[in-house]
Amino acid sequence: MTTIRTADDLRAALATAPGPDAAALSQADARNGQLTKPPGALGRLEDLAIWYAGWRGDPRPAIVAPQVIVFAGNHGVAAQGVSAFPAAVTEQMVLNFQAGGAAINQLSLLAGARMDVHALALAQPTADFTTAPAMDADDFATALATGWDAVDAGADLLVTGEMGIGNTTSAAALAHALYGGATEDWVGRGTGVDDAGLALKARVVRDGVALHGGQGDGIEILRRLGGREIAAMAGAIARARVERIPVILDGFICCAAAACLEVTQAGALDHAVAGHVSAEAGHAALLDLLGKAPLLALGMRLGEGSGAAVAIHLLKAAIACHSGMATFAEAGISGG
Amino acid sequence: MTTIRTADDLRAALATAPGPDAAALSQADARNGQLTKPPGALGRLEDLAIWYAGWRGDPRPAIVAPQVIVFAGNHGVAAQGVSAFPAAVTEQMVLNFQAGGAAINQLSLLAGARMDVHALALAQPTADFTTAPAMDADDFATALATGWDAVDAGADLLVTGEMGIGNTTSAAALAHALYGGATEDWVGRGTGVDDAGLALKARVVRDGVALHGGQGDGIEILRRLGGREIAAMAGAIARARVERIPVILDGFICCAAAACLEVTQAGALDHAVAGHVSAEAGHAALLDLLGKAPLLALGMRLGEGSGAAVAIHLLKAAIACHSGMATFAEAGISGG
Repeated sequence: MTTIRTADDLRAALATAPGPDAAALSQADARNGQLTKPPGALGRLEDLAIWYAGWRGDPRPAIVAPQVIVFAGNHGVAAQGVSAFPAAVTEQMVLNFQAGGAAINQLSLLAGARMDVHALALAQPTADFTTAPAMDADDFATALATGWDAVDAGADLLVTGEMGIGNTTSAAALAHALYGGATEDWVGRGTGVDDAGLALKARVVRDGVALHGGQGDGIEILRRLGGREIAAMAGAIARARVERIPVILDGFICCAAAACLEVTQAGALDHAVAGHVSAEAGHAALLDLLGKAPLLALGMRLGEGSGAAVAIHLLKAAIACHSGMATFAEAGISGG
Repeated sequence: MTTIRTADDLRAALATAPGPDAAALSQADARNGQLTKPPGALGRLEDLAIWYAGWRGDPRPAIVAPQVIVFAGNHGVAAQGVSAFPAAVTEQMVLNFQAGGAAINQLSLLAGARMDVHALALAQPTADFTTAPAMDADDFATALATGWDAVDAGADLLVTGEMGIGNTTSAAALAHALYGGATEDWVGRGTGVDDAGLALKARVVRDGVALHGGQGDGIEILRRLGGREIAAMAGAIARARVERIPVILDGFICCAAAACLEVTQAGALDHAVAGHVSAEAGHAALLDLLGKAPLLALGMRLGEGSGAAVAIHLLKAAIACHSGMATFAEAGISGG
């Protein structure tokens, strides 16, 4: 599928996406057992390598073309004052990404990753989801397609990041609508709101979920409570699933986007690992619900794809060991 | 101090070693507060960058010359059958390190680190510590000096790793002698011993600590219950302290070596962070006692410096952000 034109195209793509290569998985597992180390001594790096090999269809793969994509969008709910920063910061940060000055620029460069930035209609914030769906069908489809089309089919690893003042509020609403629970469990301080700001966020999330909760599948929930950058992340993660490009998930907002896919189509995130658990309230619970154990727990809460970009190195370390180490037979070592 | 000739030289070096540069620390802290991110949003990466800047005396440092050193030694207690692998594997793995086939070779290369290997008198295992001190004064001093001299004074980051069949038994005896507690809490499966092997290890550790516990300071305990590769790691970590080269500690054995320094001289490990917590029993407790929170928890238990070598990327990520990001003023962003 070269592109998607509607949300239904996305649903169809997820429903028919291929799984990992069983032969590559089993050959990678066999190779792992022959490497010069006690069985299991590389811990999660071993699991990562085998998982990656399966998705790439190569029992001894390399990572040579990681891609980081940062999507930016503006949110109608930001006008309610749910962020510690003014909405103008979204565009200012896009300029910072383009100039190379943000954290994700440094982290992409360090990880040897291509980095792309897509700003989605920043001058027209989405609708305030406490009064209407955030996006209409066309606007939503455009955002999904922006994400889908942004993925380089030649990439061998994908990180999606975001920037959008107000978007932890949107992510909290998505998680709450998808999984229920108490509103307060999903609402956090984002870029750093005070107690009054936190109470306001909770009210906004509660109102949004009261209006839109239960209205369709995870993808429809994404249209109603998400934002353009969140929809674009979902589109990109889905495209990677179809192309069998492994994904490292970033923080709460990225995982809220991803969860909309998984709730719609079980297995939609089998090609994804959790790069880190952030300090944002709700991320740990969301990862538990997705069944993803985070690779890092460094108290990061920046977004932009930053935690996942750090985790690229862990996946590279796993593949470097898996594909580069000698076997017991090659090294002439006893007891393997 | 260009080298050390005795254990007392090591004690004197630790007692007079300089601390971090206060001006660089405070300048790095100020810079961190101006970078284009919400305060604290990079979590532990921010603390790492400031800590590193202080030790290097540079408020905007780079990491360009990391060094990984792997020390190998053979242990008298191995003859009691405390490992799942035969003692011959120590030398076979040294050949594997030299040929580039081990995990630490791949991880050093990926991290852009120089890697050195030092095999310490493999043909003459140390004495079995259940009957005598592992090393006499000369043998011990030679091992300490090997580690001390192995550090490149031009390195800007150090990882020490080890290989030595039987050395988790030695590390458990060190930790038990230094900190007390129950023998069983310090004894783990190492490369993979079964239940009978685990019980044997516990008996060997108990006997060793009964004979040598309380006999002098941490450095004397290291002579009695350690091994040459463990003493060499201690020598290298101490040298780095004197040269203000930051250290990333590896697993249980590396941390047991480091603990001998800290117990002897409080603050001896202020230049060190914990790279990871391994799956080896006792490592988490040892890190707690050292007051070091691990950067990674991936279930690794290989040694060789492998966990710390993976953590090099986290420190590089911290420094890349700290030294490479734009400030709010440079980027023209509101609300910083």
